[in-house]
Parts: sequence; structure tokens; C-alpha cells
Amino acid sequence: MKLPEFIDVKSAAERIRTFIHQTPVLTSQSINEIAGAKLYFKCENFQKAGSFKMRGASNAVFSLPDEKLLNGVATHSSGNFAQALALAAGKRNITSYIVMPDTSPKAKSDAVRSYGGKIIFCEPTLEAREATLNKIVDETGAVFIHPYNQYDVIAGQGTAALELINEAGELDAIFAPVGGGGLLSGTSITTKHLLPNAKIIGGEPMGADDAFRSLLKGEILPSINPKTIADGLLTSLGSLTFPILRKNIDCIVTVSEEEIIYAMRLIWERMKIIVEPSAAVSLAAALQIRYTLSKKKIGIILSGGNLDLNNLPW
Amino acid sequence: MKLPEFIDVKSAAERIRTFIHQTPVLTSQSINEIAGAKLYFKCENFQKAGSFKMRGASNAVFSLPDEKLLNGVATHSSGNFAQALALAAGKRNITSYIVMPDTSPKAKSDAVRSYGGKIIFCEPTLEAREATLNKIVDETGAVFIHPYNQYDVIAGQGTAALELINEAGELDAIFAPVGGGGLLSGTSITTKHLLPNAKIIGGEPMGADDAFRSLLKGEILPSINPKTIADGLLTSLGSLTFPILRKNIDCIVTVSEEEIIYAMRLIWERMKIIVEPSAAVSLAAALQIRYTLSKKKIGIILSGGNLDLNNLPW
Repeated sequence: MKLPEFIDVKSAAERIRTFIHQTPVLTSQSINEIAGAKLYFKCENFQKAGSFKMRGASNAVFSLPDEKLLNGVATHSSGNFAQALALAAGKRNITSYIVMPDTSPKAKSDAVRSYGGKIIFCEPTLEAREATLNKIVDETGAVFIHPYNQYDVIAGQGTAALELINEAGELDAIFAPVGGGGLLSGTSITTKHLLPNAKIIGGEPMGADDAFRSLLKGEILPSINPKTIADGLLTSLGSLTFPILRKNIDCIVTVSEEEIIYAMRLIWERMKIIVEPSAAVSLAAALQIRYTLSKKKIGIILSGGNLDLNNLPW
Repeated sequence: MKLPEFIDVKSAAERIRTFIHQTPVLTSQSINEIAGAKLYFKCENFQKAGSFKMRGASNAVFSLPDEKLLNGVATHSSGNFAQALALAAGKRNITSYIVMPDTSPKAKSDAVRSYGGKIIFCEPTLEAREATLNKIVDETGAVFIHPYNQYDVIAGQGTAALELINEAGELDAIFAPVGGGGLLSGTSITTKHLLPNAKIIGGEPMGADDAFRSLLKGEILPSINPKTIADGLLTSLGSLTFPILRKNIDCIVTVSEEEIIYAMRLIWERMKIIVEPSAAVSLAAALQIRYTLSKKKIGIILSGGNLDLNNLPW
């Protein structure tokens, strides 16, 4: 199985440059004091469609030749990848079919629709999602783009760390959240190449700790009924992301719901920016092991900023 | 009466440069679409101590000669100026006495204390505030720094517009919220000098519309029992800010509580940044008169980002 490499991340960066934001890298003196280290926050909450998913979706859509895209693209996602693929497909003037569980919040389906995505609702089970997706692909001839377990998607996600390292310079460690593992895989490919001595650390909610368990056991152990406020991290590692993480990363730090909410609120209050719970998992992980980070330069990837303001965890 | 001029703003910018953040200017494609114009948001919510008040406070503290400051500085404020003066005084290694109403939220008094300010609580009336302040000044010999009706404070507040215009270039209009009028006065001095053709517009809550009424009548008519969610704008114009606004600005646009909350939520959801209700008044005013702004380049000063996350208006 061919795994993406740094050269794929470089190509992705070139390919998607005009379709994404080069997001800012922010710092916070008061969070640095709490962490006892110098933190560089890569703000993908400011990314188009509200998360880093726009990077992978754009790379996948713009990597395919025109003749493959005559019938559009399709995916299943209840979250940020749905919006990202709809927006990326719109930028290439092709149709996108988004299979969403019929329990998705209206705000999310509205966002997908506003980007021009065609929504197909299904029952909220993995089986229904996959069956509906297969049916749509069969009927329309659309190309299936996986939200994370796909070569070009992973390469695209690696461009966030590339920009972060270009801007912040040498880092001693880099933290990213892990759900399906697309962001952490891409981050690890970039970081391993540019900063071979930097630690690469995944932050994962205890209530959805399949990456932690899978890497410990050496085989993919999907989460069963995962539960966490970090709703972008409910998915389990895939056949591509698992071997990449196994090869590249140093450890997974699991964090409690309380640690996620504390870190999220710290970012809102001190940095005055809005991040979703999944994004705060990076900082929560760094704070948990802060005694190992003393005075070091640390990259923190804030993955996204989409959430329901009517339903905050405090 | 001598009023501050552009040269004072220029001096202030030089004087406070190392004590403040040069805050970013952000744009939002989706808010531009709603407004039908190109909006440039000057993000003072990212300023030190959480608001533009740090500019005026720093300029006042660093304008005074050492021998005047032997006994520190004092002010009365329940809000952002309290934090800003405490922080600015700390940077000059002098004592600050902050008179606060005993009804102030604990988060605010904690913030003042964390910056090293000495708090003196008083009853929540204007009379009690002024009496307590006078007593403190008499007892300690501290120099009173007014939150807005003071020459150097106004000049300092004008540096936000200076940075905005330097970064965004020619603007057709600029919006700032108006409470006591320090920010709008400073903004008007800078803008009148650099962009003589630009409109200068104040946004004011209907529930605290003393600037609107005062400028209409041609005399200072203070608000009596003002009430608005924009708690930074409850104060009334002063003897310095009134004549400056009278000379420089084009109009005051008054906005309802609903318009403020709508604008605030729009900024949170679309820009993923946290602003306080007072800051959203600028955008609310621009949206109210958006039919006059068609396709123009508009500066919007977002004044601050301090608010209680446990008490949001939705």
C-alpha cells in the first residue's frame, strides 16, 4: 500500500493555494504562562468552511482529472468534511452529493446547502450511511471522496503543519487532535520531514480513544459507541491513517471531557477566538503533559471553529 | 479649550508602540455579502487587556513625567478602562487605584487585580464613584486619569484608526461605537486628517443615545438611566469629546438591542472571533445603513472582547 509522503504535501500546498486561506499563527502570553512553554496556535478555525477539512477536500477535488469529475463527487459526513467538500466542489464547478444522517443539526445541513451541496439524508447508523453512499455512487457515477482515509485528503491536511512550521520555525513538538486520523497523519508526514527531532503528539478524547488503543495493540480497534463533546473526533482510524500514525507519531494523549471544556474556554477567554471542542483537544493534551514541555516551542493545531452557539458546554 | 489633533495621535502611536498590540485587520467574505460592501474590521478585541482602552490608558500613563507619577494613578471604571489602566500602570511600575462599583462582576475585579490594580469598591452610583475617587486622590496624591474625557486618552484611542487606515488604505467610511466618545473622537481626528473625504459614523445603542440627542440639540444631554446590553456604552459624552464629535463626525446611527445581538452573533459565527456587545454596535450601525454603502470600502472598529461567557444573549 502506497502511503503519502512529504512531496505529496508540497504538491497539495501548490495545488490548493488559491482555494484556501493561509490561516494565521497566534500566540497568547497568558496561555504560555499556564503551559510553561511557548505555544504557536495554527488557527484552522479561520479556514474556509470553518475547518482544516477544506485543505484535504480541495486537494482531492483538484487532484482528479476533468474526465473523472463529469458526474461530481460524493461523501458521507455529518460534520466539517460535508461543508468542505461541498465548497471545494463548488470551486471546481462540479456537483457534490453529501450523505448526512437525518439527525444532523439544521445549521450543518443549511451550511452544506449554502455551499451548493446536494444533501441525501439517511438513518443515523454507519450501515445506512455506507449503503446510501454506495447507492448514490452507483446511480450518479459520482466519485467517492473519503473524509480521511484517502491519499490526497491526507496529503492536503498536511499543508496546515507546513504553513505552521514555515511561520513559527523550529518546533520541539506539535500537537493535533485525532479522530479518523487524517489531520494527524498529514501533520506527522510534514513534521517528520521538516523537523525530524520534533515530537508528534495526538490528542484524543477518552470517550473515543480508538487511536490510543489501536496504536498500543498494534492493530485497528474501532471505537464502539464513542461519546464525547468533541464531535469531530468520533470516527475511528482507517487502513491508511493507522500505518502512517504507527510509523510517525510519538504518542497519543487521552483527555477527559472536563479537560476539553477547560481548554476550549481558555482559548475563548484568553485568545478571544472561537474554536470547536475538537480543536481544544490539542491544547488539552499539551496542558496535560506540560511538565514535559518546559520552556519549549510547541505547535498546536486548532482544527476548526464550527459549533452551535446555542448549546455551549458551560 | 485645546482639543487633541492628529499630531497628538502620531506622538501617541510612537509612545505606546511597545506597550500595545498592533491588532490585525480582518475581513469576511460572507459578511461582505450581507453588507453589500467591503468591510475591514480592526480587531481591538485582540488588544492587551481585551480592548482599545489600553491605547488611551498607556498614552496617558506614559505622557506624564516621572515626578508626577510618584503616587500612582487613579480612575473610576467598572469596565475595560479599569483593566487597561491597571495594566498600563504596571508597565510603568507605578501604583494604580481603581474605584469600582461593588456590583461589578467578580471576573472584572479579578482581572484588574491580576494586572496589579488596587481596587476600592463603592456604591453603584455616579455620586459615590466620584466622591470615592476624590477621596482616594486626596489621600494618596495619585493622578486622576479620566476614562475618556482627557486629552491624552483621546489621542491614544486615535491610534487604532491610524493602524487601520495604514493597513486597509483608502476607506470611504469608518464606524466606531460611541459611549463617552473617547474612541469615536480619536477615530475622527485621525480619519479627518488622513482621509478628509471619508464619512465618520458613530454607532450608538438606542437605550443609551445621549450622543445622538446631544449632537442633534447642540448641547450635552447626558443619558438618564441608560439601559443596553452594550455595557461599555452606558456613559455620556464629556466636555472634550462633545466638541470633537460635533466638529468631525457625519452622523450617529442608533441601533436596537436586537440589531446589536444579531451583529454580535454574525461576527462570532462567520469570523470565529469573540467580541463584546459594545463592539458589535459598529457593525450593527453599518448594516442598518447598508443601502448607502454599496460596494464601498468601510472600516469597522471592533472595540473589545471582554464579556461573561456564562451570560450570553442567546
